[in-house]
Amino acid sequence: MIRANLGIVEIFGPTLQGEGQVIGRKTLFIRFAGCDYACLWCDSAFTWKPGQIAPVEHLRPHEVLHRLLQLDPQCRDVTLSGGNPALYDLTELVEQLGAHGYRLHVETQGSRAPAWLGRVDSVTISPKPPSSGMDTDWALLQQTVAVSACPDLKVVVFDEADYDYARDLRVRFPNLPFALQVGNRVGDDDTAALLQKLDWLAQRALSDPTMQNVRILPQLHVLLWGNRRGV
Amino acid sequence: MIRANLGIVEIFGPTLQGEGQVIGRKTLFIRFAGCDYACLWCDSAFTWKPGQIAPVEHLRPHEVLHRLLQLDPQCRDVTLSGGNPALYDLTELVEQLGAHGYRLHVETQGSRAPAWLGRVDSVTISPKPPSSGMDTDWALLQQTVAVSACPDLKVVVFDEADYDYARDLRVRFPNLPFALQVGNRVGDDDTAALLQKLDWLAQRALSDPTMQNVRILPQLHVLLWGNRRGV
Repeated sequence: MIRANLGIVEIFGPTLQGEGQVIGRKTLFIRFAGCDYACLWCDSAFTWKPGQIAPVEHLRPHEVLHRLLQLDPQCRDVTLSGGNPALYDLTELVEQLGAHGYRLHVETQGSRAPAWLGRVDSVTISPKPPSSGMDTDWALLQQTVAVSACPDLKVVVFDEADYDYARDLRVRFPNLPFALQVGNRVGDDDTAALLQKLDWLAQRALSDPTMQNVRILPQLHVLLWGNRRGV
Repeated sequence: MIRANLGIVEIFGPTLQGEGQVIGRKTLFIRFAGCDYACLWCDSAFTWKPGQIAPVEHLRPHEVLHRLLQLDPQCRDVTLSGGNPALYDLTELVEQLGAHGYRLHVETQGSRAPAWLGRVDSVTISPKPPSSGMDTDWALLQQTVAVSACPDLKVVVFDEADYDYARDLRVRFPNLPFALQVGNRVGDDDTAALLQKLDWLAQRALSDPTMQNVRILPQLHVLLWGNRRGV
């Protein structure tokens, strides 16, 4: 685990959380550099992809806090995203932000299970379906679910094989909050096309007896603002 | 309170919950007839408006259960909407559906506070802003919040006056889950216009220090399917 200064690609907001159980929430974002995955359709490849990676700042927790307060002195919702923030030891950051009254939400793929995931407010775990090109380590995913505070699952669905993966995941974790989300490729953010895909996914899940106690969601920020950085 | 058979305008689904904290959730809907309000922009005027009201069925709780199972034998999420379902004594319906494992979500405006609102899984309370033409009885709203299980607040915002009302509401109830939602008038469901309004509302709330720990949301079903009945 990375214990030194935190490698951060961007701190921005307040903006809307575009995805998952807390879709629409006003939040600040901290986006960490580095990922143990390399999803074919990653919409944040600038956090990890050789040749595309954005400048990385190395900040200490009190510097991160200072930046958050500069962006919005009142906002106390922060989303930790990446890349995969679970690659880092964020114990100290989580403690400091918690002490200042921040509600902390984490986005990770469930391939690392550091103990600090249990000391935040919620963890959205998004295992990656076949279209990503990645394989799921089910034991590690189970560990991540077990250690996390208020875990929920989210699966991005591009095609039928992804949908089958999501269904399998639902059967493995029948009691966790669960969201299906339409996938989009960078540059492929036409509103009508996105809503058409969401309609497909909705009809698929609404008519599927296996898919119960689930949510079907768009990426709200992409509908609003397209696939831009820093929103 | 109405204690006899339940006046129901439609039972439909499974479909998506288009609004509020559980936006995107797969759910069955029961829409009750009758309302103590007459909002100028009501999108369900067929539940209450003289001359527009749809045929009302009078069903007993076991008949409602039978209909739900016919629509989807597996789905166990039900949303009770209206009109204002809190006009009815739904104690028996809530008990019967609960005994069959249903998760019950209620949508009401917070103008009636029957005890059964405390025996469901969640209650979305949506006080109506000035554009509705209605006045808020703050004591009744407080009672509804107090009696309800897992209450959250939702305000539909059409204009600046509505936004000010929402801000006042946030100050009065600083700790409840809180959603701002863009309004749309029936027939006025052009996707680009809806997203433009959502962008306005988002920018307004994101830059407002008073609006913290809030969500800004569209009506997902309107984006997907327009302002049609039965979806």
